[in-house]
Amino acid sequence: MTRITLSSPLDMHLHLREGAMLKLVAPLSAKMFAGAVIMPNLVLPVDNREKLEKYILEIKNAVGNEIFMPYMTLFFRGYSEMELAKVKYDIIGVKLYPAGITTNSENGMQSLKKSEKTLSILQEMEIPLLVHGESGGFVLDREKDFLSTYNKLARKFPRLKIIMEHITTREAVKFLDKHENLYATITLHHLLITLDDVAGGLLAPHLFCKPIAKRPEDRDALLEAALNAHPKVMFGSDSAPHPIHKKESSGCAAGIFSAPVSLPMLAELFAKHGALDNLQTFISDNARKIYKITPPAKTITLEKRTWRIPENYGYVVPFMAETSVSWGIVK
Amino acid sequence: MTRITLSSPLDMHLHLREGAMLKLVAPLSAKMFAGAVIMPNLVLPVDNREKLEKYILEIKNAVGNEIFMPYMTLFFRGYSEMELAKVKYDIIGVKLYPAGITTNSENGMQSLKKSEKTLSILQEMEIPLLVHGESGGFVLDREKDFLSTYNKLARKFPRLKIIMEHITTREAVKFLDKHENLYATITLHHLLITLDDVAGGLLAPHLFCKPIAKRPEDRDALLEAALNAHPKVMFGSDSAPHPIHKKESSGCAAGIFSAPVSLPMLAELFAKHGALDNLQTFISDNARKIYKITPPAKTITLEKRTWRIPENYGYVVPFMAETSVSWGIVK
Repeated sequence: MTRITLSSPLDMHLHLREGAMLKLVAPLSAKMFAGAVIMPNLVLPVDNREKLEKYILEIKNAVGNEIFMPYMTLFFRGYSEMELAKVKYDIIGVKLYPAGITTNSENGMQSLKKSEKTLSILQEMEIPLLVHGESGGFVLDREKDFLSTYNKLARKFPRLKIIMEHITTREAVKFLDKHENLYATITLHHLLITLDDVAGGLLAPHLFCKPIAKRPEDRDALLEAALNAHPKVMFGSDSAPHPIHKKESSGCAAGIFSAPVSLPMLAELFAKHGALDNLQTFISDNARKIYKITPPAKTITLEKRTWRIPENYGYVVPFMAETSVSWGIVK
Repeated sequence: MTRITLSSPLDMHLHLREGAMLKLVAPLSAKMFAGAVIMPNLVLPVDNREKLEKYILEIKNAVGNEIFMPYMTLFFRGYSEMELAKVKYDIIGVKLYPAGITTNSENGMQSLKKSEKTLSILQEMEIPLLVHGESGGFVLDREKDFLSTYNKLARKFPRLKIIMEHITTREAVKFLDKHENLYATITLHHLLITLDDVAGGLLAPHLFCKPIAKRPEDRDALLEAALNAHPKVMFGSDSAPHPIHKKESSGCAAGIFSAPVSLPMLAELFAKHGALDNLQTFISDNARKIYKITPPAKTITLEKRTWRIPENYGYVVPFMAETSVSWGIVK
């Protein structure tokens, strides 16, 4: 197979930022995807109807005429049923960050106990909960440590759809089977890199993200789930652009900008493993079933041909800049 | 105790580089230490008498009138007895790097088998072997993986003094007890930081080194050995300067520049743990016994007073730049 046409590919975890950065990156996602789940961790988190509407407008303006559905999320805090009722049809879910765990998450959840009222409302209203599942412990243990919290959440709210966002460990993949109401997104970069790529040779700021890439056996478990189109697993790029001066600096911000390279690199990866037939399921069909959404119709065709990833998109360096991919988008 | 006078402090693992960098950093070490073991991994490794003499001269010129003994090392390769006889009294040991494991180690050891002849000569001539003990595996396992090589070396050459350089793991600390002829150096930074400091928050290029900082329990084991002045353990800064543009870049070079901050920070650390009485042993006495050396007489006095680490020394950023230390050198 040297060509594949994807029907309405979806990026189920995307950071578009705001202002000039959003204007730069939103069109790049809109060009390739039929829709994306938009993260709410702006400097001022998107956590009410007013901010939500303003953000939707900003995205639509940046995207222009491109077919692209922004599936919006609210930043988790204590919400009343009335507040959520007002936004229910404008959001796909609520995103929960433990406080301080990644970029602009300082206002995240402090304690599960205090959050139960809102979680219960989400369950009753059938609003999915998207979770950045990391503890505050040692960097390599944070996802594993958080599994006990997922366990509590999934048991206490068995009808709440819980998405374990950007999972990175073998343990998290296995944990998916433990509760019916657990699902997961997997990024492109966690299918490809390990901590060796980040810090095994030269230190690579453009490969630095949260959760950090783990061990080879973790990557292999993620790869197995993705290539086999595990029914509880969706593609979510976690594409998270930062300006170059915040990456190549004395304190490099976490985030890999992969949106414009995701489809070609996924096609290459799935083709390499003889799993191209499963790409449609991983990139769109699973998400439609899990979230019960019907994305706008849009087809993206990729073919086997060498494509060189640019050095940068404006002031942002993409994942795997200046390397060659063996699959490209058909214009 | 608010003051301590150290007798001939020694840095048993130091990178002085060459050229302009050497001129910048050598005086900083010479100001604080009575001597240091100088690593041979220049762009062209120091691996014969001619290069050695040239390098000694370069160091002496940079150091000027300061009392400072450069204990020289040769880069490990196949050496004949005659070659080594010519340099025996100019070197303190031979430094072995597995090929490609760190800065300028491309010409390092390819196989232990091929190296046995030279190792046997070193043993007979009573020339210590200093080892960068990392395998080519996953970045966090490299030191642990290499312990089996240490095991083979120590058993096959029981009269060869083997220094496990810059150890970073609990397992390596324990391994010291396994063979009489094993010793180790420990850096300042591995007593203080873990991978969390390198990659747990923002990614910190100035805390990136090889071997990379490990887990909290590893740091604690190193700390216990140092604070108790474990008789087989010596201080070796592994201070390894790189110009700032090679650190804050898309591919950051491994190395922490700690030479000018080592003594104040060690005094602070040992004082904090009520172990100041053991600092003399860790910083000098153990090394004298292990290597059977008598360093030049030089006293360095430190006292409890706030000292601010500068933002940079020329074009090099020091360890813990722009933070305050509670101990300083008495001028």
